[in-house]
Amino acid sequence: MGRTVDVAALVAAAAQSSPRAVARLVSLIEDAHPVLREVMAALAPYTGRARVIGLTGSPGVGKSTSTSALVSAFRGKGLRVGVLAVDPSSPFSGGALLGDRIRMQEHATDSGVFIRSMATRGHLGGLAWATPQALRVLDAAGCDVVLVETVGVGQSEVEVAGAADTTVVLLAPGMGDGIQAAKAGILEIGDVFVVNKADRDGADATARDLRHMISLGERREADDWRPSVIKTVAVTGVGVDDLVEALDKHHEWALRTGALAERRRQRAAAEIEAIALTDVRRRMGDLRDGDLVQMLAQDVAEGLRDPYGAADLVLEGLEAIQRSPLV
Amino acid sequence: MGRTVDVAALVAAAAQSSPRAVARLVSLIEDAHPVLREVMAALAPYTGRARVIGLTGSPGVGKSTSTSALVSAFRGKGLRVGVLAVDPSSPFSGGALLGDRIRMQEHATDSGVFIRSMATRGHLGGLAWATPQALRVLDAAGCDVVLVETVGVGQSEVEVAGAADTTVVLLAPGMGDGIQAAKAGILEIGDVFVVNKADRDGADATARDLRHMISLGERREADDWRPSVIKTVAVTGVGVDDLVEALDKHHEWALRTGALAERRRQRAAAEIEAIALTDVRRRMGDLRDGDLVQMLAQDVAEGLRDPYGAADLVLEGLEAIQRSPLV
Repeated sequence: MGRTVDVAALVAAAAQSSPRAVARLVSLIEDAHPVLREVMAALAPYTGRARVIGLTGSPGVGKSTSTSALVSAFRGKGLRVGVLAVDPSSPFSGGALLGDRIRMQEHATDSGVFIRSMATRGHLGGLAWATPQALRVLDAAGCDVVLVETVGVGQSEVEVAGAADTTVVLLAPGMGDGIQAAKAGILEIGDVFVVNKADRDGADATARDLRHMISLGERREADDWRPSVIKTVAVTGVGVDDLVEALDKHHEWALRTGALAERRRQRAAAEIEAIALTDVRRRMGDLRDGDLVQMLAQDVAEGLRDPYGAADLVLEGLEAIQRSPLV
Repeated sequence: MGRTVDVAALVAAAAQSSPRAVARLVSLIEDAHPVLREVMAALAPYTGRARVIGLTGSPGVGKSTSTSALVSAFRGKGLRVGVLAVDPSSPFSGGALLGDRIRMQEHATDSGVFIRSMATRGHLGGLAWATPQALRVLDAAGCDVVLVETVGVGQSEVEVAGAADTTVVLLAPGMGDGIQAAKAGILEIGDVFVVNKADRDGADATARDLRHMISLGERREADDWRPSVIKTVAVTGVGVDDLVEALDKHHEWALRTGALAERRRQRAAAEIEAIALTDVRRRMGDLRDGDLVQMLAQDVAEGLRDPYGAADLVLEGLEAIQRSPLV
C-alpha cells in the first residue's frame, strides 16, 4: 500500500476500459487508499453517463441470478455493462466471496462486462462513500449500465449506498407475508418489484400482496411513479424482458421529471457527508492516543457517566485539535 | 413535543416498572427528544443488570415467533423479560407495525413482560444510539433479560445497534446455501445459531453447512467461544429449551472471560460515537442555511467538483462555526 500509484496513468487506462485498471481502482476504494482524493478528481470529467440500477433483497431470493440475467439482456442490446456486488465486510471470508464470480462465470470472458465484488472494511458509513466511488470508476470505463447488487434491505446505510437511479427489490414466494415485507422497509425503496422464482407456489399471492401494499402507500399526484411488479424465473430467463421494459420505463420517467438529477444529487450529498464523517470519526478515534472514547465508554457501561456527557467530551476534544496551531 | 417533561418523575416511575413510563421513555428516544440527555443521566444508577440477547436474521425465518417462545421460557423461570423490536424507519408504515404486537399478544397481559417496537426516523446511525438507550430503559425497569429483535444482518449499523451480550442468528431451511449465509455476513456475528422451522426439508443440511462453515472460521485458542447450532420449531416450542441452555452457557462464558464487560464497553463506545456524530451531522446539514451540502452535491453530480474537495469545504464550514463567538 505504498503511495507510488500513478493516478494519471491508471485513470487514463480505466477510461480506455482496461479491466486491470478498473480492478486496481476498485481495490484502492476498498482500502480507502490515500490517493483516492486524486483519483476522484481525475475521474470526474469521464463520469455522468452510466445508468445505475440497484438490485436488493434478502439472501436466497436470487439476486445474483437476476443480475446475471440482466447482464445478458443488456449485452443483447449492445450495451456495455458493469456489475458491482456490494457485500458487507466479512472478516470471516476475508472480503468478497468466490461465489459471485462463479455465478457470473458465463460473462467472465466478455470484454463488454465489468464485474467487481466490493467489501468495505467494516466501517459504519463505509458503503455510503465507497459505492458512489466505485460507480464512478465503472462509469468512466464506459459502462452504459451499472447493476449494483446489495445484500439486505431496510438498513439506512445500505439504502444510502444503494441510492441507484432505479431500485429493483426482489422477493421470492414464501419468504414471508406482506407484513414482513413492510417490516423490512422495502416498500418505500423499490421502483420496480420482482417476484422471482415465480414458478413456485405462492408467486401470484406474493405479487398480489405487493400490489395491494403499494396501492395503500400510493401518492395521488399525477406525475408520480407507480412501482411495477414483475414476475420472473431468472434462472430460465422467463420475465426478464418484462423487467428490462419496466426498468426502461422508470428511466424515461426519471429523466423526464427531474427525478434522476435529484437522485444523483442525493447520492453525491450522501457521499460528501460520508467522507466528511469518516474524517471526523477517524479524529475521534485518535483522541488521547486512541484511549478517550474507550475510557468514556467504560464509565458509561458502568453507569458512572451518561452517554451525552461523554459525547460532549469527545466533541470538545475534536474542537481542541482543530484549534491547535500544531495540526 | 413540548419540553415540559417531568424527567425525575418519569424515571422514578420506570424504575418502579410502570409500563406507561417505559412506553413514554422509549417514545422520547424514537423522537430524539431534547430531554434525553437528562433522562439518560437520571437512568444511569438503575442500569447494568439486564442480560441483552440479540436475535437477528432475514425476514421470514421466524424471529418474532422465536422471540415469543423465549419470552415464555424465561417467564417460566420467573424472570422479568423485555422485548425490543428494532425496525428500520418505515415512512410507509409510519413506524413500528401492528404485526409485532399481534404476534406478542399472548404476553400482552403479563405484567412481567415489557414489549416495545422501536423505529428511528431514518437517520444514518440512528439505531446505533437509540438501541442502547432503549435497553437502558428496560434495564432500569427491572428486566432480567432483554430480547432485541433486529431485521436483517450483515449491515454494520445494525451490527452495532444489535451489539448484544449474546447474539442469536436465525436461519430457516432452504433460505440459501452456505455461500449465501457467509455473504450476508452472519457467520462472524453469531454466538448461537438457530435453524428454525426445523421440521422442514433441508434443516439437517443447513445445520451441517453451518457447523462446517463455523469450523472453517474457528480460532484455535482454548478459551474462545465455539458458536453452537440449535434446531428449533419455535411455533411449537421444540428445541427452545436447548436454545435457552445454549444462551445460558454463552452468558456464563462471557462473564467468566471478561467478554461481557468488553461487549458492554463496545456498545457504550458505539453509542457515544453515534451521539457525537449525530451532532456533527446536524451541524453539517445546517451549514449555510442548509444549502451548502446540496450545492456541493449538485457540483459533484455534474462532475464539476470532486467529493473530497466538497467534503473539505463542509469540514471547514464546521470549524468556522465552532470558532464563531456567536455560537
